[in-house]
Amino acid sequence: MQCMIIAAGKGSRLLQRGDSKPLVPILGVPLIERVIRAALEAKAEEFYVVIGYQGEQVRLFLERLAERLAIRITPLVNDDWDKDNGLSVLKAQGHLQDPFLLLMADHLFEPSLVRTLTTLTLTREEIALAVDSDTGNPLVDMGDVTRVKMEDGKIHDISKGLADFNGFDTGVFLCSPAIFKALEQSKGNGDSSLSGAVRILAAKGHAKAIPTSDFWIDVDDPQSLQRAEKALLNRLRDKANDGPVARHLNRPISAQLSRHLVNFDITPNQISMFSFVCSLLAAGLFALGGYVALLTGGVLAQFASIVDGCDGEVARLKYQSSRFGGWFDAVLDRYADAFLLFGLTWHCLAEQANGWVLLTGFMAIIGSFMLSYTADKYDNLMRDRIAASGNVALRMGRDVRVFLIFLGAVSNLVFPVLVVIAVVMNVETLRRVMIARDA
Amino acid sequence: MQCMIIAAGKGSRLLQRGDSKPLVPILGVPLIERVIRAALEAKAEEFYVVIGYQGEQVRLFLERLAERLAIRITPLVNDDWDKDNGLSVLKAQGHLQDPFLLLMADHLFEPSLVRTLTTLTLTREEIALAVDSDTGNPLVDMGDVTRVKMEDGKIHDISKGLADFNGFDTGVFLCSPAIFKALEQSKGNGDSSLSGAVRILAAKGHAKAIPTSDFWIDVDDPQSLQRAEKALLNRLRDKANDGPVARHLNRPISAQLSRHLVNFDITPNQISMFSFVCSLLAAGLFALGGYVALLTGGVLAQFASIVDGCDGEVARLKYQSSRFGGWFDAVLDRYADAFLLFGLTWHCLAEQANGWVLLTGFMAIIGSFMLSYTADKYDNLMRDRIAASGNVALRMGRDVRVFLIFLGAVSNLVFPVLVVIAVVMNVETLRRVMIARDA
Repeated sequence: MQCMIIAAGKGSRLLQRGDSKPLVPILGVPLIERVIRAALEAKAEEFYVVIGYQGEQVRLFLERLAERLAIRITPLVNDDWDKDNGLSVLKAQGHLQDPFLLLMADHLFEPSLVRTLTTLTLTREEIALAVDSDTGNPLVDMGDVTRVKMEDGKIHDISKGLADFNGFDTGVFLCSPAIFKALEQSKGNGDSSLSGAVRILAAKGHAKAIPTSDFWIDVDDPQSLQRAEKALLNRLRDKANDGPVARHLNRPISAQLSRHLVNFDITPNQISMFSFVCSLLAAGLFALGGYVALLTGGVLAQFASIVDGCDGEVARLKYQSSRFGGWFDAVLDRYADAFLLFGLTWHCLAEQANGWVLLTGFMAIIGSFMLSYTADKYDNLMRDRIAASGNVALRMGRDVRVFLIFLGAVSNLVFPVLVVIAVVMNVETLRRVMIARDA
Repeated sequence: MQCMIIAAGKGSRLLQRGDSKPLVPILGVPLIERVIRAALEAKAEEFYVVIGYQGEQVRLFLERLAERLAIRITPLVNDDWDKDNGLSVLKAQGHLQDPFLLLMADHLFEPSLVRTLTTLTLTREEIALAVDSDTGNPLVDMGDVTRVKMEDGKIHDISKGLADFNGFDTGVFLCSPAIFKALEQSKGNGDSSLSGAVRILAAKGHAKAIPTSDFWIDVDDPQSLQRAEKALLNRLRDKANDGPVARHLNRPISAQLSRHLVNFDITPNQISMFSFVCSLLAAGLFALGGYVALLTGGVLAQFASIVDGCDGEVARLKYQSSRFGGWFDAVLDRYADAFLLFGLTWHCLAEQANGWVLLTGFMAIIGSFMLSYTADKYDNLMRDRIAASGNVALRMGRDVRVFLIFLGAVSNLVFPVLVVIAVVMNVETLRRVMIARDA
């Protein structure tokens, strides 16, 4: 599916210096790149981007982006970028024959929102607009948003000043080329805005309204930019398999760290490595002996566990997720866990060298391993069975394990914590075997 | 697809006592059950089985089997079971309208052989026979097999005495109901054999010959029964992910063990548990100290590793494979590996309690774990990448690990073996990380 993006306007409310609005970074990634990435995820394939203000800068960026993502992006120049946005849409006339996606460079959205549109079948006369049906959406700037009145699945009216409305224009359209004719007509009537053309089609009953409650946001000024960043960061917490410590302690802190990390040229795998090295250092401090080293090691281990959340967060925020990255992180985590527990065991053995301590340390290490192994082995079936049965509050993941280690170090109760980990991890593994068997 | 199976004959060459031939067990599973299981795997759905000699016994077995597998099996009685086999086929007339599979209760075959037939499209006049094109097939009894002459994808002639032939009748047919008319006609000519009817259809060009080289065998006498058992056992060795020790030492022995185990009411999971308990005992013997205990433990560990192959073999031979079984076995193996290495570490520490021994033991345990973890984590992608790059001769799996432990125990060189395992397992893990990254 072809996709047209309007990126010609100046966006003076957002910019201080002479930068281009489509290139304003949100958590390390320019607005227009976020729009293109989301469209790609929704299976858009060929892009036409209308540029205007600071067009050369945008064109250069798009050229590099096209190369980086191995996609086709055609820039179309609109010198009348300071006039109504319908003129930008008209620049694509002749390029687009079949139904195409029409997006705004400054409207971020969830790929699922676009996917709802791409499954529609339009007649040659029709367009469709995704309409946010949540009229209380806190992400919407009520003073600036284009309001929509929907009736029977069609747009009844659309305009900024609308008093009677039941939705908001998300800026995400699926258009047949009929949009161009409507634009010409509206322009003849003296209204060159896109909304003007939509009103003409709506009057003929040719403008479908597709209600949605998916995430979207119009990034127009510093306030909405902040809201957008906050929304993107909040969405990082929606990871279903976060344990209790990750959810309530690690994730809020790591999200704040990630917010800054995205602005540097640091890869997720480098973050994984950094967290791993911190864990190794912590293990070394444990083995060193003495309360000060133990305490420092405990804090460092918990810090490493928090940083360990950043690799995935930065990857998701900057579209750098990779299957290797997830795998590599898991492998490092297993080594880190084992070294931390070995460090604690060493610490205990130095104080009291006996077989029970050794056996307990061994059981803690093997139990931790088995917990990860049973969760990951046979990705689909067994993991699903185990997850389906899991009481989330009691979920014993890495977050809980490291937090226990941290507590043991801080409280100087190392051996009791080893015992707890050894018992809990192995009992939980046994429970998983039972679940997997009975399922 | 409907499936008809001829199970009426006496099979006097195979039976001593008054048993029924379809119920003769091959490696713990009756012939007819093997045929039905293979047909099920090839997507057959509804079964009609013609019974005759000792019919009541067969009927009772089929009733229980239908319940056990939750499938429909309709028995059809042929009282003329001592006459030509075409009469058995005629018993199904009226029951079968669409193209159906026609199988023999005493012909074992690979499901893929049937699948080749089920993808064919037949006219209402046609039948198709899977013809073994390997005229040197050592599993074929040249004195008894029905020979086939194929020409241009059709059966030119078919008969036991054929001098000019280029294939063998596998006993696996796909038939349109035209087979019944041909049987009536052949019967009228005084030949009630299935081959007679096939010859009539062949003369009209209505008998397709589908050449195959898939496994099949006609179990007719004690010799062919032995050949069939041997062939089934040999096929156990085709496991692609067997390491060198498994392939050349463990598997040949475990296959012989499995050959006997299938005759008892022992489940694969019970075998896994037994092997695990042996490993635990071996670990305990290691920890006990002294060369005699060490040696005994080493032998026991290797024995457990061999027995560990039997669970999967028995499961495959008796159609008892389950995803839980494979997962459970893997979980037990990880515990067993860890305990064996912990036992060896304990053994060394008792002789010489120092930190290097402890660290080496720890690294051996963690390395072994990581090797299993990296292979299993993300079942598809990473495992495939790692497997694709793997030099099979150097593959470091559980078989090699336990064999090293065995060698260390026997030679009383425990610490050097711990060092080797610690180094090799962790270096191999590192290598896998490199491969996964570069792929």
